[in-house]
Amino acid sequence: MDAIILLLPVLFVLLNFVEVCNGGITSSFVRKLYASEDMPLSDFPPPPGYNAPEQVHITQGDLVGRAMIISWVTPLLRHPDYVVYWAAGSKHKKHKAHSSVETYRFYNYSSGHIHHATIKNLAFDTRYFYELGAGNVTRRFSFRTPSKVGPDAPYTFGIIGDLGQTHDSYQTLEHYVSNPKGQGVLFVGDLSYADNHPNHDNVRWDTFGRFIEKCAAYQSWTWTAGNHELDFAPELEEDVPFKPYLHRYHVPYKASQSTSPLWYSIKRASAYIIVLSSYSAYGKYTPQYAWLESELPKVNRAETPWLIVLVHSPWYNSNNYHYMEGETMRVQFESWFVKNKVDVVFAGHVHAYERTERISNINYNITNGMSAPVKDPSAPIYITIGDGGNVEGIADSFTEPPPRYSAFREASFGHAVLEIKNRTHAHYAWHRNQDNNAVVADDVWLHNRYYYPEEEV
Amino acid sequence: MDAIILLLPVLFVLLNFVEVCNGGITSSFVRKLYASEDMPLSDFPPPPGYNAPEQVHITQGDLVGRAMIISWVTPLLRHPDYVVYWAAGSKHKKHKAHSSVETYRFYNYSSGHIHHATIKNLAFDTRYFYELGAGNVTRRFSFRTPSKVGPDAPYTFGIIGDLGQTHDSYQTLEHYVSNPKGQGVLFVGDLSYADNHPNHDNVRWDTFGRFIEKCAAYQSWTWTAGNHELDFAPELEEDVPFKPYLHRYHVPYKASQSTSPLWYSIKRASAYIIVLSSYSAYGKYTPQYAWLESELPKVNRAETPWLIVLVHSPWYNSNNYHYMEGETMRVQFESWFVKNKVDVVFAGHVHAYERTERISNINYNITNGMSAPVKDPSAPIYITIGDGGNVEGIADSFTEPPPRYSAFREASFGHAVLEIKNRTHAHYAWHRNQDNNAVVADDVWLHNRYYYPEEEV
Repeated sequence: MDAIILLLPVLFVLLNFVEVCNGGITSSFVRKLYASEDMPLSDFPPPPGYNAPEQVHITQGDLVGRAMIISWVTPLLRHPDYVVYWAAGSKHKKHKAHSSVETYRFYNYSSGHIHHATIKNLAFDTRYFYELGAGNVTRRFSFRTPSKVGPDAPYTFGIIGDLGQTHDSYQTLEHYVSNPKGQGVLFVGDLSYADNHPNHDNVRWDTFGRFIEKCAAYQSWTWTAGNHELDFAPELEEDVPFKPYLHRYHVPYKASQSTSPLWYSIKRASAYIIVLSSYSAYGKYTPQYAWLESELPKVNRAETPWLIVLVHSPWYNSNNYHYMEGETMRVQFESWFVKNKVDVVFAGHVHAYERTERISNINYNITNGMSAPVKDPSAPIYITIGDGGNVEGIADSFTEPPPRYSAFREASFGHAVLEIKNRTHAHYAWHRNQDNNAVVADDVWLHNRYYYPEEEV
Repeated sequence: MDAIILLLPVLFVLLNFVEVCNGGITSSFVRKLYASEDMPLSDFPPPPGYNAPEQVHITQGDLVGRAMIISWVTPLLRHPDYVVYWAAGSKHKKHKAHSSVETYRFYNYSSGHIHHATIKNLAFDTRYFYELGAGNVTRRFSFRTPSKVGPDAPYTFGIIGDLGQTHDSYQTLEHYVSNPKGQGVLFVGDLSYADNHPNHDNVRWDTFGRFIEKCAAYQSWTWTAGNHELDFAPELEEDVPFKPYLHRYHVPYKASQSTSPLWYSIKRASAYIIVLSSYSAYGKYTPQYAWLESELPKVNRAETPWLIVLVHSPWYNSNNYHYMEGETMRVQFESWFVKNKVDVVFAGHVHAYERTERISNINYNITNGMSAPVKDPSAPIYITIGDGGNVEGIADSFTEPPPRYSAFREASFGHAVLEIKNRTHAHYAWHRNQDNNAVVADDVWLHNRYYYPEEEV
């Protein structure tokens, strides 16, 4: 695969000049503007061996990080339908967990056997090995569990959105993987972009699973559903939203009393992660609304100081692409986020990067005219990071002048890393794909809203 | 049943004094303010006879009014599972249509056999008789089909919302039934209020079906789902939204290329009725959004001049109950309604009555401060009519001062009638329960937005 990188044309001129505008910084970094093609199918070969397990990915399997959902596909046969796992150093004390197995059809596509096995009672902060398959097609992977949930448990999240499977996607993922700090990924929606292919060619869901395996088999990826997960195609008589996604990507939603895998929460080290669905109902009385209403009071900041929300469609951004598409969800939930002092909201959807000031806009009552975002120390920072590098290309048209709420924006592909140090401080950094990991294109020391609600500089 | 009316205490003092405020008229009509109880179960006896068909209701069964869905329940046996029907004057030319039959369980409740039969190829503007059951428990009903769809086809709709099954509900329905003009009902959601009973006692869905039969078996009721149709009760392990409603109330959603019975449209005479769901997803890319986006261009005002939308949660009202709950859907769709010159939007949810001016609020872009509703001749009139008279009582607290967009508001129970006369004029009148039909509490001659977009006086 290294050859692919070497063959990539050198398209990027590093003109990292920035201009300061009234509303913040708009980077004038120059990047190619046309969209990449998806990498050819032949770049995503299945692993060798008859019925070899493939598309391996893992995600936290309970509320606190002592379980993991191991997911994989066996293309031809249902069996073997189990995972063998053991703690590092305890090779002779192996465990076995059976998978539930499902298949689905989508128009003229038939899936392989999709396995999900939840392994439980894991120790915190411990490396585990796991094996899938049998005989000479056995494949071995490993992961490390997070520290026990607690206010000063450090943890480093990678943040990736709108990834797809282009050469740019490849760069983004390689870039993240090459950073030794990342322990788990917060993924803000839009995975495979299979729906951009004729008949939503679900083979592209398989190739995406193969593509991310090098990372997602070794780190927990926390999934958020984006619009490209809808796969709503009544013209193909496929009118059940989220069908491929829900078959392929399981999440531990029941552990947080959710009734749908599209919204749920997990605790991980010192962070409380709430995942919401931009494409489900969220009006008052709906299941998602009722869940979030009862979920927010459960957040104990003394235990998990860092309250992080993932959503696909951003509430605040200043890109002409998808501008204000997240507005209805903002209107519904923003006051709750301010009241509960959410630290940061990560969104995708817009294929560019943007970070806001701490602002809120929750005083409007239709008749009072109070509809402008204002600085608010209780408000989250909103980060739009839908810049994974998918087939639709970059969103290079920002609104002008930049609004006051925008702190930094740039139309480049990249990923971010959130290093939670302790209960008061976390370092957040965005990396564009053209730089090596030592170069930070945008960063900020986040001050925890519960333990240290001082303004960030 | 007349005895019940006679026994109702005389609670209503007819002080029909109104005061003119800066934003319109707030009626100071005095009505009782406490909520009624649901009528006792014994007030809703099943029809006599073993396994007698009950809870009969009908709704348009196709796009144009040449079909009818006949729905009923047989409590004990699945059979007979058919309806016999004939055109008036053609008694010797009977037809038979078989029903699909379904049952459901909800917590500790098991439904009877719920039948839905669609009878097709009906003639326009023709009385039909139909019979359910067999032998000595045969029950006969009748209905009249609407005129052929066309720009000057007159039609009179009743409009009822949030009905429930109290003595007030009873008054509202009796009042509507006593008006000989009504040909079909537009129901804006919240039917039985079964969910206000312990464990969402679904027997209250049965009694509601019996209650409305005297009208709904003879006129097409066009159904909208309200929050009380959600029956979302994870504490009872009932977490599939809309379960009882969707089993009991079928609608012809496929005829308008919808993929869900929660949003759909029908043409009826000179009206195009669009039904939306306040409690389903409506964000961009979602099924409801995609459907409405493709549906609006299909409306041919030269064929159906009157474009009417039904939704449960109002976008504009000035009652402190549920204030701004419809805001997110307004933000999502209002510009489409203005662009497409919707004539009138009927909503329920708020248990009071209100009518707005023609106003819109579609220029806000987060940074421009343009967030006030303004007069707009292309905008619909918004009518909140959740005043059917249910167990939750009246919503008697209006915002003060009345906003400029409010034309008339009053906290009384009642119903409305919309008499479409021709392509240019329709007479709309709201009747409070305390008056006889000759008394109109609020009315307006509506001017069609396509053929006669002049201001109403």
